[in-house]
Amino acid sequence: MNFDIIVVGSGPGGYVAAIRAAQLGKKVAIIERSEVGGICLNWGCIPTKALLKSSHVYKEILHASTYGIDLEGSVKPNFTKIIERSRGVSATMSKGVQFLLKKNGVEVIEGFATLLGTCRLSVSKEGEENRIFEAEHIILATGARAKEFPNLKADGDKVITYRAAMSLSEQPESMVVVGSGAIGVELASFYHELGTKVTIVEFLPNLVPTEDIEIAKYLERSLRKAKLAFMTSTSVTNIDATGDKCVVTVTNAKGESTITVDKVLLAVGVTPNVENMGLEECNVEMDRGKVHVDENYMTSVKNVYAIGDIIPTAALAHVASAEAICCVERICGIDARAIDYTTIPACIYTSPEIASVGMKEITAREAGYNVKVGMFPYTASGKATATNDKDGFIKLVVDEDTDKILGAHFIGTNVTEMIMEAGMVKSLGGRVKDIIKTVHPHPTLSEAIMEAAAAVHNEAIHI
Amino acid sequence: MNFDIIVVGSGPGGYVAAIRAAQLGKKVAIIERSEVGGICLNWGCIPTKALLKSSHVYKEILHASTYGIDLEGSVKPNFTKIIERSRGVSATMSKGVQFLLKKNGVEVIEGFATLLGTCRLSVSKEGEENRIFEAEHIILATGARAKEFPNLKADGDKVITYRAAMSLSEQPESMVVVGSGAIGVELASFYHELGTKVTIVEFLPNLVPTEDIEIAKYLERSLRKAKLAFMTSTSVTNIDATGDKCVVTVTNAKGESTITVDKVLLAVGVTPNVENMGLEECNVEMDRGKVHVDENYMTSVKNVYAIGDIIPTAALAHVASAEAICCVERICGIDARAIDYTTIPACIYTSPEIASVGMKEITAREAGYNVKVGMFPYTASGKATATNDKDGFIKLVVDEDTDKILGAHFIGTNVTEMIMEAGMVKSLGGRVKDIIKTVHPHPTLSEAIMEAAAAVHNEAIHI
Repeated sequence: MNFDIIVVGSGPGGYVAAIRAAQLGKKVAIIERSEVGGICLNWGCIPTKALLKSSHVYKEILHASTYGIDLEGSVKPNFTKIIERSRGVSATMSKGVQFLLKKNGVEVIEGFATLLGTCRLSVSKEGEENRIFEAEHIILATGARAKEFPNLKADGDKVITYRAAMSLSEQPESMVVVGSGAIGVELASFYHELGTKVTIVEFLPNLVPTEDIEIAKYLERSLRKAKLAFMTSTSVTNIDATGDKCVVTVTNAKGESTITVDKVLLAVGVTPNVENMGLEECNVEMDRGKVHVDENYMTSVKNVYAIGDIIPTAALAHVASAEAICCVERICGIDARAIDYTTIPACIYTSPEIASVGMKEITAREAGYNVKVGMFPYTASGKATATNDKDGFIKLVVDEDTDKILGAHFIGTNVTEMIMEAGMVKSLGGRVKDIIKTVHPHPTLSEAIMEAAAAVHNEAIHI
Repeated sequence: MNFDIIVVGSGPGGYVAAIRAAQLGKKVAIIERSEVGGICLNWGCIPTKALLKSSHVYKEILHASTYGIDLEGSVKPNFTKIIERSRGVSATMSKGVQFLLKKNGVEVIEGFATLLGTCRLSVSKEGEENRIFEAEHIILATGARAKEFPNLKADGDKVITYRAAMSLSEQPESMVVVGSGAIGVELASFYHELGTKVTIVEFLPNLVPTEDIEIAKYLERSLRKAKLAFMTSTSVTNIDATGDKCVVTVTNAKGESTITVDKVLLAVGVTPNVENMGLEECNVEMDRGKVHVDENYMTSVKNVYAIGDIIPTAALAHVASAEAICCVERICGIDARAIDYTTIPACIYTSPEIASVGMKEITAREAGYNVKVGMFPYTASGKATATNDKDGFIKLVVDEDTDKILGAHFIGTNVTEMIMEAGMVKSLGGRVKDIIKTVHPHPTLSEAIMEAAAAVHNEAIHI
């Protein structure tokens, strides 16, 4: 055996698995065909946050007079510098992961891995001969890529996916974003804030369709106020990119119409990277296009594991990392706690931000719970008033019989950093009463969580 | 009886008591001699946050090029507009509290209350005859004001306290801030960020002397980098305000020196408002200058209660509000949970922000706990890298025997909104392992809490 554990893919699933395994004394290798850190670090979570920071600063400068700051002269986004900064952040993070891998003694192997069976895989790299590696355990963490459809195909020029959208050489004047999941609305927000004329087209009846309906409706209201155009219950039936511009044909209840734009961003979801890597040849059992695993993340092939976007759980970086740790710890004989998949937070970095954990209200009602909802608006928050962040609210979905949190749905400034209070309470089985009776610091937005909890018991002070 | 409950003082203790009592069906009056909402809303927590928002926006604009935003022309703070905005925020909040009081049927009585004994008090107002009111229960919530010393006295012109510092007609060119508690360092930060040459003078060996020593040292390092001057272990021995400028004489181990400035801000703590309100005449038992209360917040006089800054507990707005609710609920016969005074969060809105809950490391060690510390720096956070917020760290002080949190000490962007994750875990008796094993969303600063928890067990991934 060359290694105790070989990890395939160095995204937030793979590199975390490799580091944790090395911490536990294993001899580990990680195989990566592209940038260390995977999509998350290089073309996902991280560079988008860098881009959004730039557009937020720009937006704040445009509103400087609101805060008593006098500006004379011109202010404009330097698109090239904004992209460069974001790429620099990704490069820094990728180097950071490379440093951590090295520090932990993980061997990084460049190339594309193909599973040969229990304990064996081959690695191909252009211009080199294939190499065979053996390891007692193999963890597949190959992630996902942008989904395309027969009539929605990227050409890498005018019709693009997230990757190109984060590295354009110039700012488009106009753009259609197809799909309003996290990737779609975040990039739409970025371009809109910088001044691109953006139209989001969503097939389903609401934007951010996986979110609680009140959150979705509130986001729509906010985007409308911000003059970011969107169409829901609308499908893209054709994209004609043969001319100078893209002509996008959309169809909805009102009929067919066209939108002519510089760029079309396809953000219609992601699809797992499971092709040409030996899964079929090794008879790895699949589950609707993803890899089937047992409770230890082992596939149908002994000692071959799969985690992250290629298995049926939520395709989120933090889920991949958690699965990485659980999988590795169990391989190493640690009785690791199973991941609580009912308590997975999700964040969308729009303006306002969205964060949630647990069940939507409708899901909780459909599941038969005796549901009580507590809401608290940012308009009633002292901190939000002071900092001009009054757009948003906190919503708790509670089981009235047990006083426990079933779901938490937040929209507003900074909610992505606040959701873990609800997450920890849910995880620990705490009650709504415990939130009410735990002193929260004043003045903070986190008080709004306490007030939403109090609202569940009809004892909120500030509404 | 005129009322079931009369509350004296309408700050975050008083108005919360009045509203909660009204919610519980009581006939309630509240007596206020000045602005509804008290110091917190009008001259404390809220207007300072409004001021700091302005100075933060200004600072961000100065660094716009970092984010790829091109600025041509001039940018400068309009001090008058900044003050006006802050005063406007306070006025809005005060009106909001007046609305809430009215909505809940609370009668607001203007004037200064003097206790006459169980159930009775008189209210005086300039130009009006004193009025006597009776209530079954009286709650004293009169708050505190800036402390002064014989050699440190405000003249309201050149030597000022927080109140004047939030309503100056023009921005001073230079300022000495005496004292480095929350009020001192927050106002120092505000003026410094706007360009005033500020020097903080602290008598004790470190800034923010109530905080964990590592937090204090880190803040000092950050302020040094930001070129905000400060002197520790230094006392102000004289302030000569007779000339055009103030000449401040300071003494420390290096000897005596003078600093000449436009304004001196005294921020040497607060003192409770307990004078001339009948406490002595009614034989209300005192405790080193504050009002002694029992576990139900009842003073030594039957059915007269005291909460907030006038009792020996921490002088914080959120403590006053919590005491208000507990006191009122118990008056109303509800078996309200006692406040857990070991889990009171505290926040300081400097750059970087500071937030803490529970014991400092040294306190935990002195108390004999088997202490284990987990730290995680913002430099290793992906979110912090993306948003350029790398100044800060998360520190957890843990009881190794139980794996429970004894204290949490955070410094960095946004920590005031993150402290409640640690607060709730501590309050619920959760373990550090629970934090590690609860999935945190990526990319957030809150992941740093999970990593600090993992560091306690030597299993942090990103350091």
